[in-house]
Amino acid sequence: MNYESNHNDTICALATAGTGGAISVIRISGNKAIETGNKLMKLKSGTLSELPGGSFHFARIIDNEELVDEVIVNIFRSPHSYTGEDTLEISCHASIYIQQKILTMLNNHGIRIAQPGEFTQRAFLNGKMDLSQAEAVADIIAAQSKNAHKIAFDQMRGGYSSEIKSLRDRLVKLTALMELELDFSEEDVEFADRDELFSLVNEIKNKIKSLTRSFSFGNAIKNGIPVTIAGEPNVGKSTLLNLLLNEDKAIVSNIPGTTRDTIEDIFNIEGTDYRFIDTAGIRNTDNDIENQGISRTFKKIRQSKIVLYLTDNNTNYTSLDKLLNEINTIKAENTELKLILVVNKTDLFNPEENIFKELLSHKAIDDYVMISSLKNDNLHVLHESIHAASEIDRIEGNEIIVSNIRHFEALKKANTAIEQSIEGFDNKIPTDLIAIDVRQAISHLSSITDMIHHNEVLGYIFENFCIGK
Amino acid sequence: MNYESNHNDTICALATAGTGGAISVIRISGNKAIETGNKLMKLKSGTLSELPGGSFHFARIIDNEELVDEVIVNIFRSPHSYTGEDTLEISCHASIYIQQKILTMLNNHGIRIAQPGEFTQRAFLNGKMDLSQAEAVADIIAAQSKNAHKIAFDQMRGGYSSEIKSLRDRLVKLTALMELELDFSEEDVEFADRDELFSLVNEIKNKIKSLTRSFSFGNAIKNGIPVTIAGEPNVGKSTLLNLLLNEDKAIVSNIPGTTRDTIEDIFNIEGTDYRFIDTAGIRNTDNDIENQGISRTFKKIRQSKIVLYLTDNNTNYTSLDKLLNEINTIKAENTELKLILVVNKTDLFNPEENIFKELLSHKAIDDYVMISSLKNDNLHVLHESIHAASEIDRIEGNEIIVSNIRHFEALKKANTAIEQSIEGFDNKIPTDLIAIDVRQAISHLSSITDMIHHNEVLGYIFENFCIGK
Repeated sequence: MNYESNHNDTICALATAGTGGAISVIRISGNKAIETGNKLMKLKSGTLSELPGGSFHFARIIDNEELVDEVIVNIFRSPHSYTGEDTLEISCHASIYIQQKILTMLNNHGIRIAQPGEFTQRAFLNGKMDLSQAEAVADIIAAQSKNAHKIAFDQMRGGYSSEIKSLRDRLVKLTALMELELDFSEEDVEFADRDELFSLVNEIKNKIKSLTRSFSFGNAIKNGIPVTIAGEPNVGKSTLLNLLLNEDKAIVSNIPGTTRDTIEDIFNIEGTDYRFIDTAGIRNTDNDIENQGISRTFKKIRQSKIVLYLTDNNTNYTSLDKLLNEINTIKAENTELKLILVVNKTDLFNPEENIFKELLSHKAIDDYVMISSLKNDNLHVLHESIHAASEIDRIEGNEIIVSNIRHFEALKKANTAIEQSIEGFDNKIPTDLIAIDVRQAISHLSSITDMIHHNEVLGYIFENFCIGK
Repeated sequence: MNYESNHNDTICALATAGTGGAISVIRISGNKAIETGNKLMKLKSGTLSELPGGSFHFARIIDNEELVDEVIVNIFRSPHSYTGEDTLEISCHASIYIQQKILTMLNNHGIRIAQPGEFTQRAFLNGKMDLSQAEAVADIIAAQSKNAHKIAFDQMRGGYSSEIKSLRDRLVKLTALMELELDFSEEDVEFADRDELFSLVNEIKNKIKSLTRSFSFGNAIKNGIPVTIAGEPNVGKSTLLNLLLNEDKAIVSNIPGTTRDTIEDIFNIEGTDYRFIDTAGIRNTDNDIENQGISRTFKKIRQSKIVLYLTDNNTNYTSLDKLLNEINTIKAENTELKLILVVNKTDLFNPEENIFKELLSHKAIDDYVMISSLKNDNLHVLHESIHAASEIDRIEGNEIIVSNIRHFEALKKANTAIEQSIEGFDNKIPTDLIAIDVRQAISHLSSITDMIHHNEVLGYIFENFCIGK
């Protein structure tokens, strides 16, 4: 968004998708919205300028003598609109000709086409929402699953902003105290206990850490939780994927090694999008192309939230044990990773009664499920196991989840600055140097919800301390 | 449209295109629209049931404890809505999740998804518009050019319906008179002069004929006026097409016979869509494939409104004369066809000063234009000539144009019935038999704007004649 843009002019744009519907909505926002609407539209009774906000009217749009369309126009009067400005929303017939004609007529009256996001930008500039709320609007529109929708909506409604704001306010208070000490340094005043300051910074650090950690989870929910399906060749990975996806996306054959490229598709289970990734079978082989496939499989496992490791009656227990150890190593790096052992082909054998039994308690395994993909047996148990491993209930518990990469980057930078200030406390470096780090952290947190206002630090001192110096 | 459908229930549907916009509109129409809206939405103040039509409100849609969306809802109270029923229009965020969620909630409250065109069907059934007006709504939405838009809008505003209605009313009066004669046949009464009846039928026949004739014009405007570009090989047909289309659609080369398939594209000149058709060069050849191309060219000419016949300094005057005679024969069948002779390569010669001069007055030629497609010379004159040949000004003159194929078919059937009745008059066959044909014509005309009401004929007698029998 271009914050330099002149937001005194009036803008217009098509607010609905281009073609394929019955009606389209054209939005006009700015000082001249109603006055220009007046020139373009004839109402049955009265004129737009005289009519109250919150009312809508049947109108004819006329260009010279040409009847362009019969429309419904909603009148929003400032500040009671999305942007906070005077706004008209025109519902016209969804024809390309009509849309273009009306926009051209508006242009001819000096109303320019809005830039992407410009209505929301104005809502932000006019104080209708903060930056992170404005960003959430785009996420709401893009949301395809219940949980992605909830995260975006929570953010737009400001629960998220108030958490960030509270962290920032505490840091602002901290710098204020530190800067007071500097002002009175000749007098050797200490306004706050050092230990108290130190523990406050630590507490803030932990809060920021937990927000930062939530990003990989929030991002997964937004884009689909990555679930890798792995296993030896020919245990039925592609068949299972097709069962989960309810369609024939993966090529299914019984020739070992059919799947060399990874195949991904999104599937929604109980309001959550999962991105299922089918992979090449894992086995010892001299085939170069197949080995490349296997190394891609391990890469995918590292990036996943959940691994479904598929086995059957032909599984080589020694190599399974080796693989579980390998996944255990990966889990040390990716602490979010969950492994579900899926024992397939239970129509052919009972895994609890054979050597499998010993492996089921391997520490790398978070859960195991017995299925028969041939007989469509126990798939609902697998669904439940996936649901549990996704830890999606964290959302229901109203945990604050970061899903925006800009916020994630800002939080990481704030975290770095906070860690530097802690190092400063540890090394007992001068207060003015520590204050620089804390101000850095404030600045990064502020960038999430708002422009950066350094004056606020000063403002806090004058307002709250009133020392009349 | 299914006229048997129960229109006592309440229906809902997405009224805007599916994805890609900022907002979507969901329309709900029927007795339960407002009552159900009340259950789904929380307003800041008041409830939908208490609020007046013509007002819109900010509302939260809540499912159990889940906040589904923050929306704007427009209240239309019967009969002041598109369908004539109570209607809500909900502007929500354009997310697939939100759209589906709201529609599902509505379904759960017994509101079913509307069938295609069902809102307009209800508008028709509730007397808000007649059939031909309802059909025009679809044409308005599909219109891509100014003139296609004008034809559709004229039809929706009913100018067309009133013409049909007036024709029908005169026929109804005619049958009423004829049937009165039958009732009083024993008394040998003649209520109307036979010659007068006959001339009335003839007048109606001519009106129907001219409406029927307007169809090929109306249809051309809707789908693009077909303009065939023909000429000998290598005179620059493809180059001219590209200049007209402003893009490299046709393959341009200087190898004679490059274009064997016909290429079509739409280009808008001053509010009218033209469908330009490039064709294979016309010349004497033994090449089978090329000859097939040439016969396709003549087929295209027969179906066109305009032929641009392109010539240059290498044109064989004898074969051009032969071709102009051939086109003259085609013009006898397709009376709408106009031929513009386009003399190309005027950078190389002056056609007015050589043998060409004699041909320019050939009776098959409606206009000729000198251009140089190489130098981009005189293209605006060609545009003007095409515009004149299109006879598009007939629309500006508010001539009634038929563009709907159902109406065209109905008019053709009405015409056949009228011609039979004229034959009946000529052969002096009994009045009751002629009346059957006239009633057929009425029925076909009625089908354009409305359901068929045979009772109307009787109704006319009782109301207007009041003979108390």
